Amino acid sequence: MTFRDKIGAVVDRRAVQNFILGVILFNAAILGLETSKPAMDLAGAIIVTLDKICLAIFVVEIAAKLTARGFGFFKRGWNIFDFVIVGISLIPAAQGLSVLRALRILRLLRVLSVTPSLRRVVEGLMSALPGMGSVFLLTGLIFYIAAVMATKLFGASFPEWFGTLGRSGYSLFQIMTLESWSMGIVRPVMEVYPYAWVFFVPFILVTTFAVVNLVVGLIVNSMQDAHHEEDVEKTDSYRDEVMARLDRIEAAIKTRD
Amino acid sequence: MTFRDKIGAVVDRRAVQNFILGVILFNAAILGLETSKPAMDLAGAIIVTLDKICLAIFVVEIAAKLTARGFGFFKRGWNIFDFVIVGISLIPAAQGLSVLRALRILRLLRVLSVTPSLRRVVEGLMSALPGMGSVFLLTGLIFYIAAVMATKLFGASFPEWFGTLGRSGYSLFQIMTLESWSMGIVRPVMEVYPYAWVFFVPFILVTTFAVVNLVVGLIVNSMQDAHHEEDVEKTDSYRDEVMARLDRIEAAIKTRD
Amino acid sequence: MTFRDKIGAVVDRRAVQNFILGVILFNAAILGLETSKPAMDLAGAIIVTLDKICLAIFVVEIAAKLTARGFGFFKRGWNIFDFVIVGISLIPAAQGLSVLRALRILRLLRVLSVTPSLRRVVEGLMSALPGMGSVFLLTGLIFYIAAVMATKLFGASFPEWFGTLGRSGYSLFQIMTLESWSMGIVRPVMEVYPYAWVFFVPFILVTTFAVVNLVVGLIVNSMQDAHHEEDVEKTDSYRDEVMARLDRIEAAIKTRD
Amino acid sequence: MTFRDKIGAVVDRRAVQNFILGVILFNAAILGLETSKPAMDLAGAIIVTLDKICLAIFVVEIAAKLTARGFGFFKRGWNIFDFVIVGISLIPAAQGLSVLRALRILRLLRVLSVTPSLRRVVEGLMSALPGMGSVFLLTGLIFYIAAVMATKLFGASFPEWFGTLGRSGYSLFQIMTLESWSMGIVRPVMEVYPYAWVFFVPFILVTTFAVVNLVVGLIVNSMQDAHHEEDVEKTDSYRDEVMARLDRIEAAIKTRD
Repeated sequence: MTFRDKIGAVVDRRAVQNFILGVILFNAAILGLETSKPAMDLAGAIIVTLDKICLAIFVVEIAAKLTARGFGFFKRGWNIFDFVIVGISLIPAAQGLSVLRALRILRLLRVLSVTPSLRRVVEGLMSALPGMGSVFLLTGLIFYIAAVMATKLFGASFPEWFGTLGRSGYSLFQIMTLESWSMGIVRPVMEVYPYAWVFFVPFILVTTFAVVNLVVGLIVNSMQDAHHEEDVEKTDSYRDEVMARLDRIEAAIKTRD
Repeated sequence: MTFRDKIGAVVDRRAVQNFILGVILFNAAILGLETSKPAMDLAGAIIVTLDKICLAIFVVEIAAKLTARGFGFFKRGWNIFDFVIVGISLIPAAQGLSVLRALRILRLLRVLSVTPSLRRVVEGLMSALPGMGSVFLLTGLIFYIAAVMATKLFGASFPEWFGTLGRSGYSLFQIMTLESWSMGIVRPVMEVYPYAWVFFVPFILVTTFAVVNLVVGLIVNSMQDAHHEEDVEKTDSYRDEVMARLDRIEAAIKTRD
Repeated sequence: MTFRDKIGAVVDRRAVQNFILGVILFNAAILGLETSKPAMDLAGAIIVTLDKICLAIFVVEIAAKLTARGFGFFKRGWNIFDFVIVGISLIPAAQGLSVLRALRILRLLRVLSVTPSLRRVVEGLMSALPGMGSVFLLTGLIFYIAAVMATKLFGASFPEWFGTLGRSGYSLFQIMTLESWSMGIVRPVMEVYPYAWVFFVPFILVTTFAVVNLVVGLIVNSMQDAHHEEDVEKTDSYRDEVMARLDRIEAAIKTRD
Repeated sequence: MTFRDKIGAVVDRRAVQNFILGVILFNAAILGLETSKPAMDLAGAIIVTLDKICLAIFVVEIAAKLTARGFGFFKRGWNIFDFVIVGISLIPAAQGLSVLRALRILRLLRVLSVTPSLRRVVEGLMSALPGMGSVFLLTGLIFYIAAVMATKLFGASFPEWFGTLGRSGYSLFQIMTLESWSMGIVRPVMEVYPYAWVFFVPFILVTTFAVVNLVVGLIVNSMQDAHHEEDVEKTDSYRDEVMARLDRIEAAIKTRD
């Protein structure tokens, strides 16, 4: 047993996996405390140190896995996921790049790669995505066309909402979620362009219809996967069996004629 | 027949059950009247007394059940439910603890434990929950991570919405329900942090997707439970029967060769 | 053939039915014109007269049906429906009772009773309701309890929203539809009662869950009705046939031993 | 091979189809750039020229198809679709008719007619529409009646929202999407007409119920289409086969008596 095999055996042990899960949950609490001003005033140094220790444990774990498996490590999606979100935490957050500091919290997503039941849920959700590809593409197309049109039509008078392609896209996303679409956006726009509803009402109907179809597709797919396949298999094997029996009976009768 | 058996027999009688249901409905009307100022001015003392009589009847009923069944009483979930919501009504509401007084209205939920059809609906809803456990856990995780990030990113500039973990959690729940998410929260935030949409739009997409999956899961589960099982049973017994018959026929033909 | 039979035969004729449908659609246009000030200024007298003629035709039709069928007329739900909505139009709208005048437009709903395809859709929707009875009852119960609690807890400080049982019920309905629930209602309430979210967030979760269950129930019911029954019937008759054949074959083999 | 056949063969070539798809995507980028002021200031002439070249390519393609197929061209829906949206782009946009210029972006929808997978999605969505016809008709009827009523009841006091049939229809659409229905519309209306909720709350319940039924119908239809038909066919052919076999066996046994 080489050194690499030994490390691999240790890392895969149940106790080590549970320890890592414990560290993640402890780290979650620590990161929660970091947002509380009183807690930071009272014990800021301890909290920051504990957070660094948690991070160190993650780095050691991933380094161990890398050593044990070499390039094979990167063949599993969840390993890459762990590598990336721990890697992000190691980037030094220089002068005021608070965004990078905030991204460190993504580390808690490691719960997903460590807990089998959550991993299955995520994999289930992911597997539903490709089947929806065409509808996503269609929705993207509708959004792009609608964003170009809205920018050309309303951009001059409402630069805040439709000044650029990006702003139009954001405003159209807001309208698709039906948030303040009428009182907040379309009624003010209609005061300048009275026929603006000819653009927005069909947009709402079309995008809502597309979303409904995405959901319906998801339901239909889930239903089929749920238990249809095993039913079909069972039915087919039963039918084959019946046919074979009937063949034998017919043959037996014929041979005796 | 002991005294306890006699009490048990009385409590389980149909007439007594219906009487209790009647008292609950009467109590509902009384508690409704208590919220009306004119009614209280006119007949406040009577209303309060009637409410106390209703409560006394519930206490007597539960005491009777307790006497009849002893500790067995607490083995049934609905009994514990009755015990707790009647118990809450007995806590004296001292100086201004209007919350406790308001909680007394929960007494009306006894309709659930007394009416078999509603009891079944609630039990059905409850039975749908465990299957959704992983998705709930996942949603909780997303919320926690998003709340920590939002507090770190936007807490300083928008203490009202994202000042603490709790406030961030509440604001994110509001955003998940799509209520005023853009005009009320994200557009003002974007005036300070122009890239705030990079955080909020994916948050909306992810949580909405999770909710849709919860609903789809619920539908698929319900469909299966609905009539699939009895179908499968019927089909299996039919298939066994056909196979047994074919066996007999084959055997009969063979034995005659 | 008596006079009554003759009238009955005329009323049931296809041409008469189509004529009535035509009158309803013409009346719809007339009632639409009545809302337009320029049209009324130009030809108000003609419009009002045409409307009265339409109404007169409906009255004559229903009177004819009543004469032809006597009390049998009221045995069919759609006849009662026609009778009531035409009857409402005949109530004289005295001083400013504009509500009664507005109710006359319900007359257009006669399209439902005259068009078979729409009649089927409405009957389908109606047939879905009883199965949802328990969930409706449960939602009603939750609303009543929540309305009493909201009135007791927040009525004193927010009389506009929660001052009476009725106002609380309306505000809770608004909250259930998620309209401005947070920015409009709960955030202002939380400024006085910081823990108000403990009441409102569970209320939203519970009522939304109940609504989702209503929809899921509707889907499951529709799926079953859709084609399951005919499938089951066909399968059962096929299985009976197979069994009868196998019986005969077995009997034939046995009798020859 | 005539000249027309040659053109037809060229137009149907895979490489030509892919070239057209490339031109559409390039045109999409160009049209996106046209909305950006800095890009137009920098290279406005080039962008406009490139757009014109793209349009010219589309015109040539459609002219070629028309030459090749003659009137047969108009027998396929997608050809008419291409013809119309390219035709719109050719209308000269005289003084300030910015709407026509904005409609040119619809050209990008040609992606739908060129990409087989998107074409199938759109055809799938379209095929779902006719089955929903009756519910659409019903929803339209409810909207018309509600718009007439709202105009008569609230038009005088709230001309902005309910002044004409059109405005009422728009406001009712907004209310159906639940956008600001209470805080924005119904609460202000209730200050003048305290019983306005008697009109609006049932309207919301009825239209929401209708929408839910549309979605449920869509799901049920999709489920049936998904795999039911092939299942039924397979089952039927299996059953016919079993019956034929049993017939033969019975006949064989009988003939030997």
